[in-house]
Amino acid sequence: MGIELDLKKYIEEKRNKIENFILSYFNDPIRPEILHNSVTYSLTAGGKRLRPILALASYEACGGQNDITPYAAAIEFIHTYSLIHDDLPAMDNDDLRRGKPTNHKVFGEGIAILAGDGLLTEAFTILSNPNYASISKEALLKVISEISHASGLRGMVAGQALDLISEGAEPDAEIVQFIHLKKTAALIKASVKIGAILAEASEDLINRLETYGESIGLAFQIVDDILDIEGKTEEMGKPKGSDIERGKMTYPRVFGIEKSKEKAKELIHCAIDALKVFDHSAQPLREIASYIIKRTS
Amino acid sequence: MGIELDLKKYIEEKRNKIENFILSYFNDPIRPEILHNSVTYSLTAGGKRLRPILALASYEACGGQNDITPYAAAIEFIHTYSLIHDDLPAMDNDDLRRGKPTNHKVFGEGIAILAGDGLLTEAFTILSNPNYASISKEALLKVISEISHASGLRGMVAGQALDLISEGAEPDAEIVQFIHLKKTAALIKASVKIGAILAEASEDLINRLETYGESIGLAFQIVDDILDIEGKTEEMGKPKGSDIERGKMTYPRVFGIEKSKEKAKELIHCAIDALKVFDHSAQPLREIASYIIKRTS
Repeated sequence: MGIELDLKKYIEEKRNKIENFILSYFNDPIRPEILHNSVTYSLTAGGKRLRPILALASYEACGGQNDITPYAAAIEFIHTYSLIHDDLPAMDNDDLRRGKPTNHKVFGEGIAILAGDGLLTEAFTILSNPNYASISKEALLKVISEISHASGLRGMVAGQALDLISEGAEPDAEIVQFIHLKKTAALIKASVKIGAILAEASEDLINRLETYGESIGLAFQIVDDILDIEGKTEEMGKPKGSDIERGKMTYPRVFGIEKSKEKAKELIHCAIDALKVFDHSAQPLREIASYIIKRTS
Repeated sequence: MGIELDLKKYIEEKRNKIENFILSYFNDPIRPEILHNSVTYSLTAGGKRLRPILALASYEACGGQNDITPYAAAIEFIHTYSLIHDDLPAMDNDDLRRGKPTNHKVFGEGIAILAGDGLLTEAFTILSNPNYASISKEALLKVISEISHASGLRGMVAGQALDLISEGAEPDAEIVQFIHLKKTAALIKASVKIGAILAEASEDLINRLETYGESIGLAFQIVDDILDIEGKTEEMGKPKGSDIERGKMTYPRVFGIEKSKEKAKELIHCAIDALKVFDHSAQPLREIASYIIKRTS
């Protein structure tokens, strides 16, 4: 890979690796069959695979030489669980996700809850398996700590809980910031960070990638909020305006749409700036940051 | 501790340690407050702490000298998550658990789902923290692998899913065996096994403790099935007969109540037999096995 980077091709290549791992993971079917089908339905529903791709790109930017696809893919298991649970009637009550019926619409609420539980748990089975690549056990433990912390009671779950109880509340800058940092940015930041941990990068590089990860994570959610207002339903795979309908605490609702766009741009600038000590091996990370603000779905 | 063992005192001592750890874990409150309250409500709802006590007893039987309370307590986080999710309307739809309203009855379904998700995730934050005791990183990784496998898509979640879809189905010995082994025995077995792993016990001892753990785990669930028919509502903290009402796949339903009692006795015998190479340090494990068959709640 030279200075010029074909981001589309890069992403396609990584996505294939991740999806091959996911498929192979279920070669030996889960029992009962409905649980197998529920889990694989959501795992193969056409996600962008942003989080595992970020982990792989960060690993490469730090000079990692192994194939860490399984550990990167484990994050997609966690992301997928969070989407299945977020869509439940007791949460966001969504019927559509990426243009397809949500998991509980197809398999029922009970199985959807269990599929989410199982995916979350299975991520740790993958991350604790030292046989996938030549990685130190210390690094794997750090990765598990990082990911569980980002997803747990002081991370993603806290963000989702505050999001849930803040529906219809008065716009509040501190609250929307907490929700977005925890609900979305925490796992994106952890994805980037684990690439660096697995590559045994220096403290300085890890800190820089943390800044990068948190910045693009927050920008990602702000763009999501903006797309809910300005996006095209057919591109997003879900009806627009649903955040407004539910009185969700969004960036545009608190700061207005123009300020939100400015903030997203600033964050992307900050993310790319944090990468300045990296050479061209961080080019995919730079371009992913730029893509995040331009995306339409 | 001599040959004579005061089991009640032993259990009380261990339980205190576990509950102190659980309380101290939430000294720094979770935000939002409702999530904090939901999580601590179920964690402190008067559980027997059987699984962490088994882990501690197994660790001691294998000669372990450290205080591994946090790692043992992590299993209680997982057990508690599984109860919160099992009680949900989309699952067993229970209003009472240990004589108190179930989590979703108090905090609502959305928060109950999130509390469960958070507890499950947090268990791995605890297990991946190497600072709690002087344990090798290799042993901790093995523990994470063991527990996640026992709880995941080929463990507890699979058992719960088959349990859910088998309600009202014709009695089937193979199905009830699968459900009980996965839904209940898997995590109990893992609890016993991680004690041995943390003590870096020999392969032979680990195998024996696996046999012990699976046997008492299966016996525990069979006794649960029997208590649903013969138990006293006030002792159990939930109405009896609810399995029958729901057409649950239970041991008594498949094999009859007398055969079920015999099977539970056999299993306890088999569990105690597996411990024969251990000295008096395994006395708590032996007595816990005997207690399991005599319990009334």
